[in-house]
Formats: sequence, C-alpha cells, structure tokens
Amino acid sequence: MEPLNHYLSNIRPLNRDAMEKTQSRLDNLAKPPGSLGRLEDIAVTLAGIGGETVYDASKRCVIIMSSDNGVVEEGVASAPQAVTHMMTLNFTKGITGVAVLAKQFSADLIVVDMGVNADVSHPAILNKKIRKSTWNIAEQDAMTREEAERAVLTGIETAIEAVENGYSLLGAGEMGIGNTTTSAAVLCALTGITAVQAAGKGAGLKEEAYRHKIEIIHKALTNNKPNPGDPMDVLAKVGGFDIAAMAGLYIGGAYKRVPVVIDGFISMVAALAAYRMNPLVKEYMLASHASFEQGFSLAAKALGVDPYLNMNMRLGEGSGCPLMFAMIDAACAVIRDMGTFEQANISDEYLDEIREGDNFTVGSVK
Amino acid sequence: MEPLNHYLSNIRPLNRDAMEKTQSRLDNLAKPPGSLGRLEDIAVTLAGIGGETVYDASKRCVIIMSSDNGVVEEGVASAPQAVTHMMTLNFTKGITGVAVLAKQFSADLIVVDMGVNADVSHPAILNKKIRKSTWNIAEQDAMTREEAERAVLTGIETAIEAVENGYSLLGAGEMGIGNTTTSAAVLCALTGITAVQAAGKGAGLKEEAYRHKIEIIHKALTNNKPNPGDPMDVLAKVGGFDIAAMAGLYIGGAYKRVPVVIDGFISMVAALAAYRMNPLVKEYMLASHASFEQGFSLAAKALGVDPYLNMNMRLGEGSGCPLMFAMIDAACAVIRDMGTFEQANISDEYLDEIREGDNFTVGSVK
Repeated sequence: MEPLNHYLSNIRPLNRDAMEKTQSRLDNLAKPPGSLGRLEDIAVTLAGIGGETVYDASKRCVIIMSSDNGVVEEGVASAPQAVTHMMTLNFTKGITGVAVLAKQFSADLIVVDMGVNADVSHPAILNKKIRKSTWNIAEQDAMTREEAERAVLTGIETAIEAVENGYSLLGAGEMGIGNTTTSAAVLCALTGITAVQAAGKGAGLKEEAYRHKIEIIHKALTNNKPNPGDPMDVLAKVGGFDIAAMAGLYIGGAYKRVPVVIDGFISMVAALAAYRMNPLVKEYMLASHASFEQGFSLAAKALGVDPYLNMNMRLGEGSGCPLMFAMIDAACAVIRDMGTFEQANISDEYLDEIREGDNFTVGSVK
Repeated sequence: MEPLNHYLSNIRPLNRDAMEKTQSRLDNLAKPPGSLGRLEDIAVTLAGIGGETVYDASKRCVIIMSSDNGVVEEGVASAPQAVTHMMTLNFTKGITGVAVLAKQFSADLIVVDMGVNADVSHPAILNKKIRKSTWNIAEQDAMTREEAERAVLTGIETAIEAVENGYSLLGAGEMGIGNTTTSAAVLCALTGITAVQAAGKGAGLKEEAYRHKIEIIHKALTNNKPNPGDPMDVLAKVGGFDIAAMAGLYIGGAYKRVPVVIDGFISMVAALAAYRMNPLVKEYMLASHASFEQGFSLAAKALGVDPYLNMNMRLGEGSGCPLMFAMIDAACAVIRDMGTFEQANISDEYLDEIREGDNFTVGSVK
C-alpha cells in the first residue's frame, strides 16, 4: 500500500463528457425529458464514474466491516459485545438481514474482521484486524492516530481488492455492538451538533440507558477533544475501526472509480468522514435509504445527500445497500434498453411540442 | 360479470391471524425487533392478504389502462393525442419506460385499450374499449354514469382475469394524453382542494398552458358539478376511462385478495376513488414512489399512504410499480430466508437483553 495521501490525491472528478452524452441520450428516449427523475440522475452519475454511457453493475458486493468498541463497557448498547462475533460468523451462513437481501439482489458479501474482540478464524472472513476492540472512548481515545490511519488504509485496500476481483459496485456495511455511540460521537465532532441531537436508541435502548449514552458521548467529546478540522483525529479519538475502515471503502472506491453505496447511520457518518478528507469522494457515493436512527438525517444533511428509499430501516449490516442495487439496476436498464423517440415512432412534429416544455420546477412532493 | 356492488361488498379485511403469526416470526428473526422497518410492514401486509406467512409474489404484472381524453381539445397537454395510440403500441415492443423496468424486475405487462382514440388492433393489446375517447370535460361530462360503471367493472374484470392467470401481484399503470388534467379534476372533486393545488405540469407544460389547464379544471368542476360523496359520479363527470378502470383494478385485486401497487399521480387518484367506494380496498394497496407531479402528495395524504421510494419520477405508465416489486421481493426474502435468533446462535441470556429494549419512537428521519 501507498501512504494515505497517495489515494486521496489521486481521486479524479467524474467524466463530464460521458455524463453529457448520457444526459443527451436520456433526453432522446421516448419519455418527457427528466420524467424518470432520479433514475436518470443515477444513470448520469454512473456514466461519470465509468466513462461510458452504459454502466455494468452486475457484479457487486456489500463489504461488512466488523469490529468491537471499548465503549460498550459503559452500558451504551442493548446487546452484549459477543453478538458482534456471532453476527460476523452469521454473515457467512447467509441467514442475516444483509445476507438475505444481498442474495435476493445478486450481490456477494465480503466480511472483514477489523477488530472483533475474539479470535475469529473462518475461511470466509478476511482477517484485517487492527486489534481486538478499540479502547473505551469515555475513558481515553478509541485508538492511536497510527491505528486510525491503518484502519482507513485497510478499507481502501479492501475496496481496491474488490475492484481488482471484478466488482464494479460496492456497498458499505458494518457490524459492531456499540457503534451507534461511536458514530454519534464522530458526527458531533465533525459537525458541531450536540450528543442529544446525534444519539439515537440504536438497536433498542431503554430510556435510562439512552440518557446515559448521551452523557457518555458528551464525556468522550469533552475529554478526548477531537479536532473538527482533522477527520483522522476524530476517527482516532471517538471513532472505531469499523467506521475508519468504511471511510476507507469510500476513498478506495473513488480511487478505483467505482460507485459505493451508503447504508444507514454508521455508514453515512463514515461517508462524511471520508468526504471531509477529500470532497471529491462524494461524487462516487450513492445514498440508499433514510435510516430511522436519530442522527441519520443530520449526517445526510451534512454530507449533502438525499436517500432514495424511505423504509424506516435501522438494522445496519449494509442491509440497505442491496435495495439500492435494485434501483441502480433500474437506472442501468433505462439507459441500456429504452427506445428513442425515433424508435417509438414519435415523429419530429410531436417532438418539438414535447421538447419545448418548460424545464419546470414545482414544490417538493413530500 | 356481477353488478359492481357484488365486488365491493365481497372484499374482506386482511387475515389478522396470519399477520400476527408473521409479526411473531419477524420478531424472532436475528435482528433487533422492528429494525427492518417497512420491509417488515410489507411482509405483514402480504401475510394478511395471502393468509400465509410467506407470500409468493414471483408472478407479477403491470396492467396499463390506455385511454384518450376529450379535454385535450383545450390544449391542456404537452403532447398530441396521437401519442396515446403510439405509446400503447410501444408498450408491446418493450421499449418504453415501464416495459424496460418491468422486464428488469421480472414482471409482465398487460396492455388494455380502454378508449384509445384510434382503431387499435394488436394481438398483444386487450380490446376492452368503452368508446374512442371521453368527451371534453370543459364542455360536458366525460362519460355517462353507465359508461363509468362499465369502465370500473372492466378494471375489476381485468384484475380477476390476471389473478386467474396466476398473477399474485399487480401494478396499476396508465397511458392517456391529458390524464393529469382529468386526475386533478377527480382529486379536486373527491377532496375539495382547488385546481391550483391539484394541477401540475404533467409531461412538461409551459407556464401559460399550465395556467390554462388550471382554468379548465376549475371550469369542469364548476359546470359538471360532480358529487363529492359519489365517486362514480365524479369519475363520470370529470374522470376518464383509464382512471375508472384503474379504480376497478384496485377493487378487483382486493376482491381476489392480491396486492395492487400504486404508481404515480393518476394511479394514486384512481386508488383514492376506489377507496371512497369501499375503504377496505386500501388494505390491499401498496404505494410505490412519491411522484414529482404536483397533486400527488395531496392525493397520497387523502388516501393515507406513504410511498416507499423517493425517485422524483413523473413518467406514469406504471413505471414506478416494478421498482416497488423489488422492495416486495426484499420483504418476501426476509420472512422466507432470514434465520431466527436460535439459528443465529444468539442465546437466551442475550435475547432477554435484546428483546427488553423499549419499543421506542423517535422523530422522522426526513
């Protein structure tokens, strides 16, 4: 691996020429201009990423970064730490939410042990462990800066390996009991919002534990003093190996010019951290669903993305990514298979009428 | 066919027993309770419709009701009337938006001529024509009450035939130049909102034509005086054969106990008309996407449904239905394939902790 800066400084903007050609083709398809809405936007983005009008997203995967968080000592999670290990094993059995949804939408799972607090030895799980669990952010920094950089680089490496193995569409998933706490802390540090705004009830915290979680996030921010202008410092002081590795996935995807789909809260916070390292990374991101987890909408707003799906999901694991893969398939099908006005026998005299329609804007439909 | 009242009065509520069993199974799957959000809601609804925990939605179709509208004489549409005929033929060639998306998500198209203003003779198009085009609602009622009833019954018949041919999931699509005008008029009549609120720019009206469209809708409502409490009167006086037939699709689907997916504005207005004939029909409906067309959100609100997809689409044709079929596939996969806590080796001691989480509610994420 090269140093981090090599990857960050070698991310290129999207191919505007391919995007323009694709938009022209979309405008010539047998439909009112723009009427396929965000499916058209996706097709244009994919053209900008791949450089061709038609993008082949048929080989895709969800990459799951599994890691434990020392902060669970504080009672901030509704499930015990051992569940991280068990669910990491379960991904390989095809019975978890993300596994079932990935299979439904023809995606593979790549499961990475970034810091599970157990000896995980399984042929289907990539061992890229930084170490067993971060430290407790309520007591000290989660990790050293060197470890944070290594975790980000590991995410980049994983994305690069996936692309070199033929994957042209990635999803960023995670598993780590306690990681809604660390994500909320990272979100606060990066944006300046308060713990009350950022913290949600995760997998199902009771009211008292929820209040405690807010206090712990506040304490971690106050004690560890992450530097808002230095995303690596934020990841090291209040983050986790999972979040750092996911940030690396986005960077690695952009570096290799493949789209990376954002899942829920943790995935979105990691995307924001990556964006803060280089804003160009965002051009390669596609938000999937609007997570039900409290801080999600603030994280999405900070990143400036608007999810496509309104499912009230809050499972994590990358479970929203396969649903978005289906929307991406739809966008690819439109640009690949729809007929032009000419093929649709809609003649020039009509075309003029149709095309002369205003490029109108009306209010939001929600 | 029986008289309309036979179908309306033989719609049964969902099977609450099957829904409870399905909810129990969902709560026992290896995930925090409720964390798959609206995918779980879909699975429960499908169980209530089919009576079994697992619903087989693999054979599905979008039914496209094509018809012309006399009101196009008033210059309310951005495309000429002949486009209805051409696009109706194009559906059979697989090159339109809905055709491409249906194919992508393994759905068939059923194309029905309800009142295209041409002699449509094509082996792949069902001829169920009431007559060629409605009358101009700015000058007189769109159709007689008898014709409106016949159009609704035709929609019911089409749904019944589809179910008898093995389809277990239907989508309600349409094609008809001028039908955002008639739909807006129906929406106004059913809900009491104004033409300014209900009317959008359809496939791309210019500003002046848009203002004229609003005037025409207002004129039709004022002159024809549809009775808000009598949906059939509303359909006859300011609707269209397409809208009436789609209302019939929802009724027929509910009568035969299969789910019917709502597409965009016109499809949503037809759903509202069906709901006003018998509110139980709504239990069999699934909204798909939030259309960009102006009146859509008001129609969805009046019906009390919240779309799943946020795509800014406004093509019509039923093009949003196949996207929703993918979400339904996801819900079916979850209930069919996910492992239980036991299968996931998450033991009883952990389970108690996980299950004891509050059934929390947090604010909307949007």
